[in-house]
Amino acid sequence: MPIWSELKRDELQKLLALNRSRYEELKALGLSLDLSRGKPGSDVLDMSNGLLGALDDYRAEDGTDVRNYGVLDGLPELKKLFSDLLGIPVENMIVGGNSSLTHMYNTFALFYLFGAPDGMGVMDCKPWHREHSVKIICPVPGYDRHFNLTIDFGAKPITVPMCDDGPDMDETEKLVVADPSIKGIWIVPLYSNPTGQIISKEKAARLARMKTAAPDFRILWDDAYGVHHLWDEHRAPDILSACREAGYPERAVSFFSTSKVNFPGSGVGLVAAGSRTVERMKAHLRKQTIGFDKISQLRTVNFFEGKAEKVRLHMERLAAVLRPKFELVLDRLDSGFEGTGLISYKRPLGGYFISVDVPEGCAKRVVAIAKEAGVVLTPAGATFPYGEDPKDSNLRLAPSFPSLDELDKTMDVFEVCVKLAALEKAEKA
Amino acid sequence: MPIWSELKRDELQKLLALNRSRYEELKALGLSLDLSRGKPGSDVLDMSNGLLGALDDYRAEDGTDVRNYGVLDGLPELKKLFSDLLGIPVENMIVGGNSSLTHMYNTFALFYLFGAPDGMGVMDCKPWHREHSVKIICPVPGYDRHFNLTIDFGAKPITVPMCDDGPDMDETEKLVVADPSIKGIWIVPLYSNPTGQIISKEKAARLARMKTAAPDFRILWDDAYGVHHLWDEHRAPDILSACREAGYPERAVSFFSTSKVNFPGSGVGLVAAGSRTVERMKAHLRKQTIGFDKISQLRTVNFFEGKAEKVRLHMERLAAVLRPKFELVLDRLDSGFEGTGLISYKRPLGGYFISVDVPEGCAKRVVAIAKEAGVVLTPAGATFPYGEDPKDSNLRLAPSFPSLDELDKTMDVFEVCVKLAALEKAEKA
Repeated sequence: MPIWSELKRDELQKLLALNRSRYEELKALGLSLDLSRGKPGSDVLDMSNGLLGALDDYRAEDGTDVRNYGVLDGLPELKKLFSDLLGIPVENMIVGGNSSLTHMYNTFALFYLFGAPDGMGVMDCKPWHREHSVKIICPVPGYDRHFNLTIDFGAKPITVPMCDDGPDMDETEKLVVADPSIKGIWIVPLYSNPTGQIISKEKAARLARMKTAAPDFRILWDDAYGVHHLWDEHRAPDILSACREAGYPERAVSFFSTSKVNFPGSGVGLVAAGSRTVERMKAHLRKQTIGFDKISQLRTVNFFEGKAEKVRLHMERLAAVLRPKFELVLDRLDSGFEGTGLISYKRPLGGYFISVDVPEGCAKRVVAIAKEAGVVLTPAGATFPYGEDPKDSNLRLAPSFPSLDELDKTMDVFEVCVKLAALEKAEKA
Repeated sequence: MPIWSELKRDELQKLLALNRSRYEELKALGLSLDLSRGKPGSDVLDMSNGLLGALDDYRAEDGTDVRNYGVLDGLPELKKLFSDLLGIPVENMIVGGNSSLTHMYNTFALFYLFGAPDGMGVMDCKPWHREHSVKIICPVPGYDRHFNLTIDFGAKPITVPMCDDGPDMDETEKLVVADPSIKGIWIVPLYSNPTGQIISKEKAARLARMKTAAPDFRILWDDAYGVHHLWDEHRAPDILSACREAGYPERAVSFFSTSKVNFPGSGVGLVAAGSRTVERMKAHLRKQTIGFDKISQLRTVNFFEGKAEKVRLHMERLAAVLRPKFELVLDRLDSGFEGTGLISYKRPLGGYFISVDVPEGCAKRVVAIAKEAGVVLTPAGATFPYGEDPKDSNLRLAPSFPSLDELDKTMDVFEVCVKLAALEKAEKA
């Protein structure tokens, strides 16, 4: 059979009838499934239940009673653990709070309200609220919460294409050198959301050294999946060092959390940056809190016995549960769409998502008819600012939460819905 | 003996010699004591160790797995517990995070970055960063962290005297009606920091109904000690209702946390306000976090079996440990300074502090010589914005952390230091 864009009229009608009847069969099953949620299943959560147990001792290594006030920016032993794990010097990090998203929000609030050091770290720049306009580059497809945070502050997302090895750098360099209102770029370096790819060392180096019209331009480096491998282990380029070596020690701000290492919503967040930026963050943090939840921090240290290798081992165990789910979805995409030319997708190397491009103009329709058949997909457009995918083509699948059995049923529905939407479109053409 | 301001020269010299020798004796003991820290002792912390134990079930009442994502503004059962405890409707509160100070900071950030509804709730006011100047009324003596937060945002603290029944309202009303740049007032309603007194219903009502030149004027109601009684139980006036009844449903923002109920730094914070303000807070919160630490929230509910009366019982137990410490300090102030006319102080009705006014111009000197004798006191001036007490007279004593034995020694030093500073001053006069 030819690829579907070359179907003859009668072949198309036959396939349409076939898929319509298949769709009605699936709909009749009265399914209620969800492929939209980038959250772990209880099988994965159970592997961290040790965190919930008794805390034998409530003293930190230096004798601090973690039940009481004190310690602004994180227990030293947890900083050390993160330093070993991520290769970030302890003096460049602030550790605490349950959410890296909150650290991102605080970072924007800092820049907007108080301003930040320039990338070289030689002067203080004015608060962003005093700028006529602020723009942030958002590689697409990307992470909706980055877009929404950006928009919440009144900044304008500027999209550039996301390639397999990072953002389109020619385009990025052209933009940032010309426009001083472009103040930053969002990057998910390792296992990008949603495509699951890795930014190359070369592209990271170009980000670090590129000329920017805004002296206080920022690389917003969301290392959310820094240890969330699915098959082989990879490591994100060391952006803080790359920026320092390029003469812009304050250019990058990096984020990480244990939300998807242990428990989403009850993890520990981290923000890291150049020393002047961290100093500035701490000065305001001191007015904002007496300290983060040190009991949660000590539990995290204890659970991993303070050792980075224990974190890696734990992540391998988690991956062993997640991997079959990803493999199932990828197998179903491979087998279900072989020879059709309908979709394009990449095997994610890690992270939580599979990004699929369906025929242009079909993504919304797929989501709508999948919903009718009892399968919730992430809204089409979610991977673009304002929820607007100009091609109406990208869909983000999240295989982590459902069971294998549920995933299989979900993929029955997904496959038929994509085919149906594509055939309907072809019929109208 | 006459009060010390009427001493004859020879009496003064004799007392000076006596207290100098007493001071040298104490100094020779090589003490290392601290009366500066408003934090619980481990005796009090131990009473909440049940919170650290195993979590038998990780399901909230509605079945939510608290280990996973979800729930933006607090578990319903914890909201209900706080509602029962504080008399705040659940729909007016956001519950979560480990720190009420962070809620205060976020509230300021919201007003500065995005603006807030006016007090009547009929229009949206412009962001405070667009105002030429912002001033916040700070009753003094007051809480240093309120001052520092205010100053951090670039707002100017305007002081008014703190009376036993709340701020000087004649002065407050005169200020707010005349100056549209006055945007708020800090109030610690129950057991004010540091004087330990209670704002009267009448004064709360005046705050609620007073005419303000700024339409978006805010009562920043820090109910930090809402359940922290020392002798009898009291309750702060219901400021949200008072404001609503006065036609300003959005005027008050109230804060509370369990930092000094269970564990400082690992508690649960609460912010409550009028429904339009809460709606606005939630809209931005959604961009800032996926949710607060629900495991910590569920632990809190479980520890108190979801019952407000269990919280009250727990606070009674805590008070039983704290009370003797306060009584010791008060007894030592009573007996040590009887008939001298040197100091004035009020018995705090609850909270964490005892506020003492020493002779004008002596507070800094007392702190300095106490330090030399091995006793750390809160820096003189801490209860005033910028650390500047115009009379150099107010000192804040924090009896909660030391043991009774340590407190007794501490009061030996305090008594001698105040007397010595006062006599030195009189000698120079």
